[in-house]
Amino acid sequence: MARILTLTSDFGTRDAYVGAMKGVILGIARETEMVDISHEIGAQDVMEGAFVLQNAVPFFPPETVHLVVVDPGVGTDRRGVAVRLEDQFFVGADNGLFTLLAKRADRIEVVELDERSAWRSDDPSTTFHGRDIFAPAAAHLAAGRALDEIGTPVDDELEPLRWAEPTVDETGIRGWVVHVDRFGNCITNVPRSLFEEERRDRSVKLYAGSAVIRGIVSTYGAAEVGEPVALFGSSGFLEVALRSSDAAEELSIMKGDPVNVVFESEYGPDA
Amino acid sequence: MARILTLTSDFGTRDAYVGAMKGVILGIARETEMVDISHEIGAQDVMEGAFVLQNAVPFFPPETVHLVVVDPGVGTDRRGVAVRLEDQFFVGADNGLFTLLAKRADRIEVVELDERSAWRSDDPSTTFHGRDIFAPAAAHLAAGRALDEIGTPVDDELEPLRWAEPTVDETGIRGWVVHVDRFGNCITNVPRSLFEEERRDRSVKLYAGSAVIRGIVSTYGAAEVGEPVALFGSSGFLEVALRSSDAAEELSIMKGDPVNVVFESEYGPDA
Amino acid sequence: MARILTLTSDFGTRDAYVGAMKGVILGIARETEMVDISHEIGAQDVMEGAFVLQNAVPFFPPETVHLVVVDPGVGTDRRGVAVRLEDQFFVGADNGLFTLLAKRADRIEVVELDERSAWRSDDPSTTFHGRDIFAPAAAHLAAGRALDEIGTPVDDELEPLRWAEPTVDETGIRGWVVHVDRFGNCITNVPRSLFEEERRDRSVKLYAGSAVIRGIVSTYGAAEVGEPVALFGSSGFLEVALRSSDAAEELSIMKGDPVNVVFESEYGPDA
Repeated sequence: MARILTLTSDFGTRDAYVGAMKGVILGIARETEMVDISHEIGAQDVMEGAFVLQNAVPFFPPETVHLVVVDPGVGTDRRGVAVRLEDQFFVGADNGLFTLLAKRADRIEVVELDERSAWRSDDPSTTFHGRDIFAPAAAHLAAGRALDEIGTPVDDELEPLRWAEPTVDETGIRGWVVHVDRFGNCITNVPRSLFEEERRDRSVKLYAGSAVIRGIVSTYGAAEVGEPVALFGSSGFLEVALRSSDAAEELSIMKGDPVNVVFESEYGPDA
Repeated sequence: MARILTLTSDFGTRDAYVGAMKGVILGIARETEMVDISHEIGAQDVMEGAFVLQNAVPFFPPETVHLVVVDPGVGTDRRGVAVRLEDQFFVGADNGLFTLLAKRADRIEVVELDERSAWRSDDPSTTFHGRDIFAPAAAHLAAGRALDEIGTPVDDELEPLRWAEPTVDETGIRGWVVHVDRFGNCITNVPRSLFEEERRDRSVKLYAGSAVIRGIVSTYGAAEVGEPVALFGSSGFLEVALRSSDAAEELSIMKGDPVNVVFESEYGPDA
Repeated sequence: MARILTLTSDFGTRDAYVGAMKGVILGIARETEMVDISHEIGAQDVMEGAFVLQNAVPFFPPETVHLVVVDPGVGTDRRGVAVRLEDQFFVGADNGLFTLLAKRADRIEVVELDERSAWRSDDPSTTFHGRDIFAPAAAHLAAGRALDEIGTPVDDELEPLRWAEPTVDETGIRGWVVHVDRFGNCITNVPRSLFEEERRDRSVKLYAGSAVIRGIVSTYGAAEVGEPVALFGSSGFLEVALRSSDAAEELSIMKGDPVNVVFESEYGPDA
C-alpha cells in the first residue's frame, strides 16, 4: 500500500497551485492517499507553517510523508530537502520548517533534493519548486522509494527557525503569539513542559494584549462567557482565549504580540 | 471495503485541527475514504451545522459515517454520541446537530461514547474531543465496527435543536434565515412541504429584509437581473435570491433575520 | 481502477454544495479518487474558472475526468456537455469553460448531456445541475463509461469564451489581468509564446496599475524587496509581482485591469 501524503502550504485554495501539485503526485504515486493539513498558512510565514505542521504530525501513522511548501526563498540558493524524523518523512525548503520537529527527534536523516531524475522535468520552473521538485520528491517517497533515491545525504544541520524560543528568568517567561486560530484563540510559543518546570508552586499572572489573567484553567468551559482565560490547549502550548468569543479581536492581540507570564510566590498556587 | 467518512466542523482550514483528526482516523481506519462537507460552519453555530449537514446527507450512499464537530459545550457535561439514522451513521456532541435528521427517521439507535478503549487515549484533551473522542469513534464505525462496540446504548431522546420551527397561522408563515450561502442566497427554515400545505391556492407575498416579493419562481433564470425572487432551492427550503447578485448584501438580510410569508386569497394564485 | 476525478467550482466551501456532489459521485463511482482544484472561483466567473482549470489540467495523468461547475446560465437553455480533449475528460456547462483548452487540442469529442438515465433523477433541480446532471456524468466517466453512454455526440463548436485574446500591434501587446492569486500576483492573458514572437529583440516596458516596469525577470528572487517586476510565472502567462509583497494591493491592480506591453527598439534588449 502507498504511504499517506499530507500537504501544507501558503497557496490558499483559490488558485490552481495545490491542484497542480496533486496532479503531479498522482502521476507518480497513483495509490497514495492525500490529506490536506492547511493551505492557509500566512504567505511566506515559515514560523506559522512550522507551528501548524507540528500540531498535525504527531497524529499521523508511521511512514506518513509530509509535503510542506512555504518557500519565501524560491529561486534563490536555499536548499530543497527530504528529511526522515523518527518514522515520518518531510519534504520542502530547508528554511526552518522542520527544525522544531527535528529538535525532538532521535533519528534524523537528511538528503538534498539534487537528483534531477526525480524532478518533474530537468528544467523546473524558477517560481514553483512545490510543483516541480518537492511534490515529485514527496510522491516518490509515498510510492515507497528510499531517501537516497531522490537526493544526496548531507551531514550538516537543518537551517534554524528564526523563531526564538521564549525567554526565561527568575520572575517568569516571555513568549509570544505564533498563531491565531479560527476562533480567535491566541496560541503562544510557551510549551506546557517549560511552564511547569519554571512555575515551582508559584501563582501565575499573564499579560496579553489588553488582558491581565490570573491562573490557568483546564478548559474553556471553566470560564464565564466573555472572561479572558489562559490554558494549555490541545497543541500543548499556552493559549489565551475567551469563552464563546474571539480573544484576538476582543483583547487586541495579533500574531507576533508578546505574552508575559509572571510567577508570584507570595500568593501561592491559585490554579 | 471501509465505509465513507464525511467531516463537518467549525474549525476552518487555517489550523491543524482538521488535519489532526484525519491523522487519527487514518491510524484506525486506513482504508476509509474521507470527504469534507464543510469546515466553515459559523463558530459554535449548531443551527448552521445541522442545516448544512442535512443538505449533504441525503446524497451519500448507505453506511456512510458523518463526523460532525460543532461543539460549544466541549469540556462541560454535554454528552458525546454516535447515532444510526436509517442506514447512515453520525458522530458528535448531543447538542441538537442530529435532531432535524432524527425527526424524519424511522430507525434510530443512539449510543453514548463512554467506551474509553475506543478513545484516542484514556486522558482526552478537555478542549478537543473532536480529535480524541469523536474522530476515533467515527473511524471505528468506518472500519465496520458496531455501535455497541464504541458506546452504551441509551433510550432517551436526543437534545432538541434550539432552532424553532417556523410559526404558522391563518395569514401565513413566519420563518427565518438559517444560512447565507456563498452567492448571497438567503435560505430560510420554511420547507416546501409546509408551504404547499398552508398555501391553499392563495397568492403569496414575502417580506425579507428590504424586499417585498410577489409569488414564487422555479429558477433563478426566471428573474430579471437584479430583481429579488423567492424560490425553493436545491435544499427544499424557501430561499430569497437575486439573479447574478448577492441578495444578502443588496437586501440587507443577515443570518437570523425573519422572513414573513403572507397568503392572500383575494388575488388568487399567481405562481 | 477508477479514473481520477477533479472538481472545480464557484461554490465555496461554506455550504453543502460540494459535499452533495461528492456524495452523488461516490454513489456511482465508489472507487474514484476525487481531487479538489478550487471551489473559490469568483461567483459565476467563467473566465477565471477557465483560467484556473487550464493551469491544473496539464499536470494530471491521462484519463482524468475534470468536473467544472461555474454555471451562470443554470435554468436557462444553455447546453450541458461532456468533452474529450486529447486524453482527458471535461464535464460542465457549454459556456466557454473548456474553449481555451479545446483550441490547443487535436482530438476533440463532445456529447450533449441529454441522456436522462445518466442523471441523478428524471426531474433534476432547476438550480443545481452540478449535483443532478454534471456530477453523475463525471462519475459515470470516472467509472469507465464511454462518452456516448451519457449523451449524444454533437458536431458544432463549443461556445466561445467571452475573454478576448490580447490585442497586438507594431508597438506592443495589450492584455489584461485575468486572475489575482493569493499572494497578490497579477496574472495576465499574455502567453509567453505570443510575447516572444512579437518582441523581436526589442526592449520591453510594461504599464500595469501604478507601475511602469522595465524588462522581464526570470524569478521573484531577482527583484529587490518591494520592487515591481514582470515575469512569466509557472502558468506560462505574464505576471506582475512584488517580491515578498502583494502587487495587486500595492500597485492598485484588479482583475480585469489592462496591462500594456510596449516594445522599444531604440534601447536594444535589456532582459
